[in-house]
Amino acid sequence: MRDARRTSPRLKPGVKRAQILEVATEQFGRHGYEETKWADVAESVGIGSTALYHYFESKQHCLYEIIGKTVFEFREQFDRRVAEHDDWGEALVAVLRGGFNLTGWEILRLRVVTAEHTRLGVHSSLPREEAARASARANKRDLEFAWGTFLARGMEQGLVPERSPQLLTRAVIGLYNSVWVWYRPGGSLQLDDVARFYIERQLDILGCDPEDAARWLAAAA
Amino acid sequence: MRDARRTSPRLKPGVKRAQILEVATEQFGRHGYEETKWADVAESVGIGSTALYHYFESKQHCLYEIIGKTVFEFREQFDRRVAEHDDWGEALVAVLRGGFNLTGWEILRLRVVTAEHTRLGVHSSLPREEAARASARANKRDLEFAWGTFLARGMEQGLVPERSPQLLTRAVIGLYNSVWVWYRPGGSLQLDDVARFYIERQLDILGCDPEDAARWLAAAA
Repeated sequence: MRDARRTSPRLKPGVKRAQILEVATEQFGRHGYEETKWADVAESVGIGSTALYHYFESKQHCLYEIIGKTVFEFREQFDRRVAEHDDWGEALVAVLRGGFNLTGWEILRLRVVTAEHTRLGVHSSLPREEAARASARANKRDLEFAWGTFLARGMEQGLVPERSPQLLTRAVIGLYNSVWVWYRPGGSLQLDDVARFYIERQLDILGCDPEDAARWLAAAA
Repeated sequence: MRDARRTSPRLKPGVKRAQILEVATEQFGRHGYEETKWADVAESVGIGSTALYHYFESKQHCLYEIIGKTVFEFREQFDRRVAEHDDWGEALVAVLRGGFNLTGWEILRLRVVTAEHTRLGVHSSLPREEAARASARANKRDLEFAWGTFLARGMEQGLVPERSPQLLTRAVIGLYNSVWVWYRPGGSLQLDDVARFYIERQLDILGCDPEDAARWLAAAA
């Protein structure tokens, strides 16, 4: 990171861009998106506001990229975990467990994403910002679609009661997102305990047979 | 409402105040909190920004009052519904059903509250705004505490498996709040269908016996 700070934006634009995203995520997560001044992000990465504009049209453009990237990574991990398991239930548990396998920075990032993702609904008049917004929305739809088709396969195998895959997807993701509103690392609750509790509740929502669920959890332990 | 608009703020401050809260809720809900200009709210209720300041120190002060009032009303309804039913399960179903017994304006209000309630975590330097923030937070804690003690009584009666009442409260409320992120009246899904689906999932999360749950739902129908 130290080298990246000394590098001119023109030489390694990808490095500088990644650095801005990382610092912005950290500051949005710690102090709140609204409370973070865009100029402070520029100062933290050691560039002026003109250079910053080279990478992001606005603070909101940067936020949209953070959300889009986060959701894209969730989708990649989702696909990878599903591909790694032949057993549907073991794939499900791997995906649910993966959702809580997080670094402190990733928890901060989820706090930003879950607190601010409703902004994706508002059309932007800045062209690059609007493109980032549209891309983040598309990534969100893709992730929901992947979940929906995965749940439909579980229904087909008789492992999940027949229900609307779309509503069930929203319920499982909605419950998961709600954790990052209140969870703070270093508080009285350990992430492992929160994970165990919430994964069981996600399995409850899906209506999986408790014996099936216990077997999948044991197999993945 | 027409009469209220003609009334001087000095004569009926409560009426004007309620009118500002109503119009602000509507505009925050339709256009987004960030996207709504405070001056537009003033104009819609027919007062100048100096008169507006008489009622609210800032747009955020108004938001905090909206959140605090909404949570307070939820708490009142919670207490009333619990008091109206001797049977624990029937009280539970009455509370869950009540959560979806909403007018279009109340849905808009919930959209504002669930999208913006994370702002309650950030201390304010304006005295009246800070008082409204602290009051809204206290109302939220009171509602969670009421839920927690209610769930503990259900556990005591053997109707809910023994689990952390605090985490269970957060999970049930978190799932409920997630609906208002995406639900739009007049869309392809009817509120009644969404309510039925989500109430069943809330009962799943609580771990209630399906036969018990079916009986409570039938008794309350």
